[in-house]
Amino acid sequence: MANNPSGSISLPEGLLSGNIDEYFMRQALMEAEKGGKEDEVPIGAVIVSGGRIIARSHNMTECLNDVTAHAEMLAITAAAEALGGKYLPGCTLYVTVEPCPMCAGALGWSQIGRIVYGAPDEKRGYRSVSGGGYKSPLHPKTIVTEGVLKEECSEIMRTFFQGKRRKR
Amino acid sequence: MANNPSGSISLPEGLLSGNIDEYFMRQALMEAEKGGKEDEVPIGAVIVSGGRIIARSHNMTECLNDVTAHAEMLAITAAAEALGGKYLPGCTLYVTVEPCPMCAGALGWSQIGRIVYGAPDEKRGYRSVSGGGYKSPLHPKTIVTEGVLKEECSEIMRTFFQGKRRKR
Repeated sequence: MANNPSGSISLPEGLLSGNIDEYFMRQALMEAEKGGKEDEVPIGAVIVSGGRIIARSHNMTECLNDVTAHAEMLAITAAAEALGGKYLPGCTLYVTVEPCPMCAGALGWSQIGRIVYGAPDEKRGYRSVSGGGYKSPLHPKTIVTEGVLKEECSEIMRTFFQGKRRKR
Repeated sequence: MANNPSGSISLPEGLLSGNIDEYFMRQALMEAEKGGKEDEVPIGAVIVSGGRIIARSHNMTECLNDVTAHAEMLAITAAAEALGGKYLPGCTLYVTVEPCPMCAGALGWSQIGRIVYGAPDEKRGYRSVSGGGYKSPLHPKTIVTEGVLKEECSEIMRTFFQGKRRKR
C-alpha cells in the first residue's frame, strides 16, 4: 500500500474491487493454513491498524503445549507490543473462526474496535456461553461482523478434522 | 512437606489444624501482595498438583503491557510447562479473586480439576457473563469452591484501589 499523488491511500489490486474485509480475511486464512501444516487446529488471525497488518498469528496450542495459545491471544499480545500500548480501540481483528469465550474475554479487555470472523462456532464460540440477560464478554463498543469468507474458513477446519479422523 | 515414617505425607504446621484450602490461598495472597507492590492489580494464584505448588503467579498486565497477562493465565501456562502436558485435570487452582470470562475460558480448555477462589467479582467475574440457559465456560467436571479467605482477598483489592484514587 502506498500513497498516490492525490494523497489518498492506494490499496493492493484485490482491494480495488472493494472488499477490504475479504482481503484481510484471506491473510488470516493464510495463517490458518500455516497452522494446519504444523498439525495445529487451522485457525488464523491478523490485527489491522490504520490499514496495516500489525500482528499475524495462528493457533499454536500443540507446539507451545499451552491451551491459552489461540491465534487471537497471540495476536492481541503481538499487536499491543507493536503499538506500545495494551488497548486496541483503533484496531480490527480478522479471525477465521468465531472466538471462544477465553478469546472473547481477552478481546473485551483489549477494547478492540472491531472483530470480523469467518465461520461461526456454535459449540465452542463465545455466543454459546453468553446472551439473554447476561453480559457479553466483549467490550460494549466493539463492532462484530460475522460470515466473511465463511465457506473457506469452515472448509479448512472440516478438511483438517476429516484428516485427523482418517489417521485414527 | 516430607514423608513421615508411616509413609503418609506430613503437611506444614498450619495444615495440621486442617484447612488445606486456606493454606494454599495464603500462598496465592502472598503472590497478590507481590503484584500490588509492583503496582499491578493485586490478584495472585497458585496451582497445586499432588499436594505441591507447581505454579505461582500474579497479575502482570502493566509490566508486560498485555491484557492477557492475568494471574490465572500465567499460572496455567506455567503449570502445563511444569507437568509437560497441557491439560490439568489433577490440579487445583487457588486464586484470590473470581476469574474473569477470559480466565474461565482458559481454565475450561485446561480441564482443571478444581478451582478455589477468594473474593467474588460481581462486575467482572465469569458468572456475570454466563448462566441460565447458557453453558459455563468452565469444563463440566471442574469443581468450584468460593469464598476461601474472602475477607483478606477483598481487602487487598479495596486497599489497592483506594490508594489509586488518592493518587489521582
